[in-house]
Order: sequence, then structure tokens, then C-alpha cells
Amino acid sequence: MYFIVMEVASQNFALKGDIAYSKTQTRLETFENSYLVCEKGKSAGVFPRLPEAFAGFPLIDYTGRLILPGLTDLHMHAPQFSFRSLGMDLELLSWLEKHAFPEEAKYRDAEYARLAYGLLTEHLKRSPNTRFCIFATIHVPATVILMDLLEESGLVSMVGKVNMDRNSPDILREADAETSAAATREWLTALADRNYKNTYPILTPRFIPSCSDDLMAALARIQKHCAAAHSPRALPLQSHLSENQREIAWVRELCPEAGCYGDAYARHDLFGAEIPTIMAHCVWSGEEELRLMRSRGVYIAHCPQSNLNISSGIAPVRRFLDMGIPTGLGSDVAGGVHTSIFRAMTDAIGVSKLRQCLVAKDEAPITFEEAFWMGTLGGGSFFGKAGLPGNAGATGSFDPGYEFDALVIDDADLAAPFSLSVEERLRRTVYLSDDRHIVAKYVRGNLI
Amino acid sequence: MYFIVMEVASQNFALKGDIAYSKTQTRLETFENSYLVCEKGKSAGVFPRLPEAFAGFPLIDYTGRLILPGLTDLHMHAPQFSFRSLGMDLELLSWLEKHAFPEEAKYRDAEYARLAYGLLTEHLKRSPNTRFCIFATIHVPATVILMDLLEESGLVSMVGKVNMDRNSPDILREADAETSAAATREWLTALADRNYKNTYPILTPRFIPSCSDDLMAALARIQKHCAAAHSPRALPLQSHLSENQREIAWVRELCPEAGCYGDAYARHDLFGAEIPTIMAHCVWSGEEELRLMRSRGVYIAHCPQSNLNISSGIAPVRRFLDMGIPTGLGSDVAGGVHTSIFRAMTDAIGVSKLRQCLVAKDEAPITFEEAFWMGTLGGGSFFGKAGLPGNAGATGSFDPGYEFDALVIDDADLAAPFSLSVEERLRRTVYLSDDRHIVAKYVRGNLI
Repeated sequence: MYFIVMEVASQNFALKGDIAYSKTQTRLETFENSYLVCEKGKSAGVFPRLPEAFAGFPLIDYTGRLILPGLTDLHMHAPQFSFRSLGMDLELLSWLEKHAFPEEAKYRDAEYARLAYGLLTEHLKRSPNTRFCIFATIHVPATVILMDLLEESGLVSMVGKVNMDRNSPDILREADAETSAAATREWLTALADRNYKNTYPILTPRFIPSCSDDLMAALARIQKHCAAAHSPRALPLQSHLSENQREIAWVRELCPEAGCYGDAYARHDLFGAEIPTIMAHCVWSGEEELRLMRSRGVYIAHCPQSNLNISSGIAPVRRFLDMGIPTGLGSDVAGGVHTSIFRAMTDAIGVSKLRQCLVAKDEAPITFEEAFWMGTLGGGSFFGKAGLPGNAGATGSFDPGYEFDALVIDDADLAAPFSLSVEERLRRTVYLSDDRHIVAKYVRGNLI
Repeated sequence: MYFIVMEVASQNFALKGDIAYSKTQTRLETFENSYLVCEKGKSAGVFPRLPEAFAGFPLIDYTGRLILPGLTDLHMHAPQFSFRSLGMDLELLSWLEKHAFPEEAKYRDAEYARLAYGLLTEHLKRSPNTRFCIFATIHVPATVILMDLLEESGLVSMVGKVNMDRNSPDILREADAETSAAATREWLTALADRNYKNTYPILTPRFIPSCSDDLMAALARIQKHCAAAHSPRALPLQSHLSENQREIAWVRELCPEAGCYGDAYARHDLFGAEIPTIMAHCVWSGEEELRLMRSRGVYIAHCPQSNLNISSGIAPVRRFLDMGIPTGLGSDVAGGVHTSIFRAMTDAIGVSKLRQCLVAKDEAPITFEEAFWMGTLGGGSFFGKAGLPGNAGATGSFDPGYEFDALVIDDADLAAPFSLSVEERLRRTVYLSDDRHIVAKYVRGNLI
């Protein structure tokens, strides 16, 4: 076993087993008893027989097991993991005030952060997710602790120190725009000499209601400074958009000049285009907002479980996909309770059926193939958008060139009294597996 | 350990731990570090100190663990367990035709039934459910095999040989009403000398579209015969009601004389009143149907996950509860994918929020307390309704007199970085636990 791990660390190896991945948004491909090759941490493709060129690679035999791409969680709140499943009786704005904000305030205490983020990181290592876009809190030391822990774990993540200077309780509000911006610069400076291999900063204004115009302007300056120093796509950005109708009405009051909620970000040059951007939710995004997102290549993190738990609604995912807006899945822990993106896939399918049934008869439900694509390549492609030196590339596919994130699943106890195809076994895995079924997890070619 | 199990088999014992159960539909009670007494297979209550009267009972120390009532699954299809999570891309009537019926037809082969039902029974033993109301298939031998396996498992169940003599494929249709009725009598006769302790027959016309008027009349005669021989409430009944709008339109065509779908059962005297009756779904039940159910004490099996998976809609559970219609939860495997009634609780809460958000603003979402009540006492009380000699009593509560079904949960790995109350631990268990967390399961006072 030690020998194998050593060899794997060289990032040149082949796995043998039953392989499945999304070729396109609507097409899943499966390969029985085939070979998946990892070369220098990237997929070299799937083959029915091991090609001569890779004959010298160590072969790890997972015959009879499923090999799938790692999953990407495009949206979660690390400090909220601690209270997941509690306080599920409120909608967004009251829930933030009563549960999320008081818990996040605790992370000013670095020891608490170390304890809580330690529990989270251990949990995420066992999950089927390999990549994460994560909100931390406003606190620089706690955010760096989280990033250190994630880096140690071998998982790949983008993590944001959160900015918020208004409409938040005293215990969780930065004094003013300049204080918040200074803390952000301090955070980015602290990261510079840490030489992380798998952990990246992402600019994280919480959402329009908690960020003043001055703060947004200051963040735009930080982004441009970073772009000038590194690359135009250097510092990506994540935030929330059109999650809840009360929230949207509030944004309309706060930014009457914006044509839509998304435009409130765009007016500060913090909405896609050159900046790789993820907006979580978009449950109530209208035509104008969706068109703006498409034209600026903004990613949507669809978080079906959270949208149900905190009574936000059902996002028009069929429209996102039809319009070609890049879309992945998010757990949105702790609006969502479950971290696994397998669960997000099945929730996405389920609520899309209710949407068709109850709200929008002309919007066909999300298919299994589409949900699987969103949870793998849909979200995993975001990692190919950013341009920091040494930044990660896209993952979520086994086509040649994608970074090698893979799960090996022992699905023997999900068997049926009849024989199942690889695709049927994949469906069962997505609906029914848990962390016990994951026998190996590779991230960027490393076994973690 | 052997000693303890022996003592437990006497059905007089006490458990010590952190206890939670529903006192009423809206009130959950929790008891830290307390004693739950089982006397002759029934709860004798919860006490802060062990009362003198029970001082001689063996005490099993579960300090630090949660003790909860067992859960009741009021609606599932045993033969569909084999294909759960497959074919989730259709709505009810097409799904029946393409997936459910062809699979059920296989159970004419007793060997297949033994294999498939063996897998199911092993799975159910590990689940948090202790009681079940189950549809088998039309096949008498396979139904008896299932009942034998369930009896061996120690679980408590009502199982129905299904009746269907029209609008079904040739491979899964009884030739005519008399053939179906004769098979039902044959099945009941076969059970008479089996002396099950925990397994009961329940009359199971599949649904109106697959049962002719003659068949319904014949089943009513069988029910009355049984009532005369035993007790008025002798042979309970289960079926489906108002799951899907196309189905309802079809019933309207088939029974134009019925005032509503429920009335199509009532016109044959197979809808509550003296007969303990469960109707699954009721997603689209109108005012007239709901009033009919209330007046006849018909139970509703609310199956939120199935209603989402096969695009049925969201049942008006707030109305069921406000009107006082007895309501429990069902997995509806394999319209539902997950057998655990913990999952049904959280699904019920979740979809009720979407219902308020999207369909019925005046219907408040189901609270955690209500969902927990539905999955325990709400459904468990049905077992106190039937009146076969030796039949089971109600369960789902630890008030004195309820049959002793209990789960012991080790929730240590669901801990938070802060201390949790018993109620918070219960919420976490309901949302996050799996079969690994169940360290003991008692059914009618027996450790299984």
C-alpha cells in the first residue's frame, strides 16, 4: 500500500474499473472495465485497454468499482457548518439575524475557529466533494486558519474573507469601508508567503445589503490592483444574488439606480466579464439579470436544498441551462444541511419537477444527466477560469487535460436482485451512497 | 451482553439516557439523563429517577445517548425496493407502466421474491423504522414469503396482497374480480395457521383505476366476513388517493357517479368508518374529499419524497393537520428512494415551505415538531386502530400504555463545537443520522 501511495504521489498512474463522466451537459458516458490514466496530475483519458504510452505507469486495480469525477461545491459557508440542521424554521433575513450572524461572530476567537474549522475539514475530506468555493467570515486570522486546514487536507478550494460594513449586527460588522478593505489587503498579504498549492483567495462581499457603495468601490480597486500585478483574471469573486423576494425588494431600496440586483454588482465592475464570478442562488432572477449574467459569463451556484430550507423558492435552472449560463451546484451549508453534492444533484432534480408541476409548466425538469454534469464539470470548470499564478485548472471531466479529481466507489451494498448497468449503478450511487462507499479520493492526482 | 438480551426478552426493563418524544402534535418533550421503563412490552413512562415499583427491572445504561420512539412507515411498496433510484424521470402513470409494473410482475417467481424480499428485510432491520404498512404484489406465495421474512425480523408490519383486475399489463393483472377475490381468501387462509406475532394482513386494492366495481364489491364482502368472524375493525385497508391530476381525471371517467375520488372507495364501503383505512398521498384532495376522510377517520400517508420524484406535487399537509385528519408519513419506496422516515420528516418540512412560498401563502409550513409527530405517533397510532385478535397496539409515544418501540442513537459524531440541548441533538439526528448511529432498536419491547 505504501508503495502504491508513493507511486501515486508521482501523479503518473492508471486506475482500472467501471468509469462514468459527463461528456457534455446532456450526455453521460460510461465505460465498463476500462482504464483511466492520470499523467502529471491531469487526465490523459479513458481507454478500453491501457495504451502502450502508459504501459510503465503503476496500475491500481479497482475492478468492479465505480470511478467518477470528484464533485465541486460552488457555494458554502464554512462557519455555518457548526449549526447545520438547527434553526430551520425561518426564512433568509430572519435566519441570518437569528442564527447565521451570531454564530459567525464567534470566529473572532481564533481558538473557536480552529476547533470548528477542524471539524469541518475532517468532514469534507470524507465527503465526495473535491473542490469548494467557500465563504469564511469577516475575521482575517480565522480565515487564514481555515485556509491552512484546507491546504493540509489536500482538497482544492477558493476561500473568501467576507466583507460587510452595513446592515449587520455590531458583533459582525466592519467599522467602515476602509476598515473592511484594509482587512482584505492584510488578508491577501498574509497569504502571499504561505505558498499554498491548493488553496486560493476569492473576493467575497457578502451581498449588496451588507456592503456600502464605498466598500464595493474599494473592493473593485483591490481586484484591479491584483489583476494588474498578476493577470486580468487574478482575483475571482463570489457573492449572493436574488435569493429571496424580501431581499430583492431591499436591494431595490438600497440601490434604486440599479436596473436589477445583479446590476448593483455590475455598476461597481464586480460582476463577471474579466473577473471570474460566482453568484449563489438566482432563484428570482428575471430576464434582464439572466441576460447580464450570460453576457458576462457569471457562474450560478444553484443551491436547491438551501432554497427549500429557508423558503426561498425554486430556481429556474432550466432557463439557466437553456440560456447557456454556466451553472454548478452548491450545498450552501448551513442554509443547506448536507455537504454532499450528490445530495444537491438529487435535490436539484426533485425541486425542478415541483417547479414544472406547480409554477412553470413549460420548463422541463432537470434530468439526471444534467444534474450530474452540474455537480461535476458544471461547477468544476470554474477552477479553470481564474488566473492567479499556480492556480488550479478545470476539473469534473475525464477528457484529456482536465485536472485529475476522482472518486472510487464501492457500491456492492447498493446492489439489486438483478444486474445493473454502470449508468444504473451511478444513479444508485448518487441517490443512495454515503461516505462509507468512497474507497479512494484523488485530488489533482493525489490520493488524499 | 447475552445476559442483558435475555433480560430484555422478558420485556420488563428500564433504559437510561436522553429521551425525546412527542406529547402532542405540536409539543415535543425532552428529558435529560432520565429513565424510560418498559413493562410487558409497553411503555410505563419516563422518569427523572427510577421509581421504586421498577427497582427490580434490569437497567440498561445508555447515558449520553438519545432514546427516541421507533418510526412508522405508513406506505411503501416492498417489490419496488429493488429498483429504488432508477427510472426517476417519469410521472406516476408512465412510471407505473414502464418501471413499477414490469418489476412487480417478477414476483410471480417465488425464488426471485425470496432473494429480493430478503435484501429488503435486512435493510429495514437496520433502518430507524419499526413499523410498516406495506404493499406486496398480486402474488400469494410471494406475499407470504415477505410476511414470513418480516415476522422473522422482529419488525411489526401490516402487509397486503395487492388486488388489480383491470387497466394493468397482462403480466400483472388478475383475470377477473372473482379470481382476485379467491386469491385474497386463499392468502388469508394461508395466514391463519402461521401464528405470526408481529405481522398482519391488510386489504390492498391497488387504486381505483386497477380495480373493477365487481372486485371492490368482492373485497367489501371479504372485509365484512372477517369483521363478523373477529371484530368490526378486523381487517384494515390501504390504498392510494388523489396522487396525481391525470390519475384523478381518469378516476372521474371510470366512476362518473362518485362525488370525488375518495367517494369511489366509500361507495363500496371501503373508506374508513369501521374499517381502519390508510390512503396514501392525497396531494390533490379537495374540500369534499378531506371532509369525507375526517368524518370517517381515514389516515393519510403523506409521502413527500415520492410526490416530488414522480412529479405529483405538494400535499396540503397544513390542511390535514388543521382539520384533524390523522396523518403519518410514508417512504413510498420506490416512488420515494429512501426508506428512513427521518428523511420523510425533513422532506415534509422542506416541501411544505415551498408550498407556502409558491402555492398557498396562507398555509404555514410544517414545523419540526409536527414532522416528528407524524413520523412517530401520527403513523404509529394506526396500529392501535385495527382489531384482529392479538393485533398490535399503538406506538410512537413513551406515554404509559404505548407499545414499546424505541431507538437508541449514538450521536457523538454529530456534535457541534458548542453544547447542544437534547432537542437540538434530536434535530441533528433527524437531518443527519444514518443507520450507523442506531446502536439499539427495540420493537414491542424486544431488542432486534
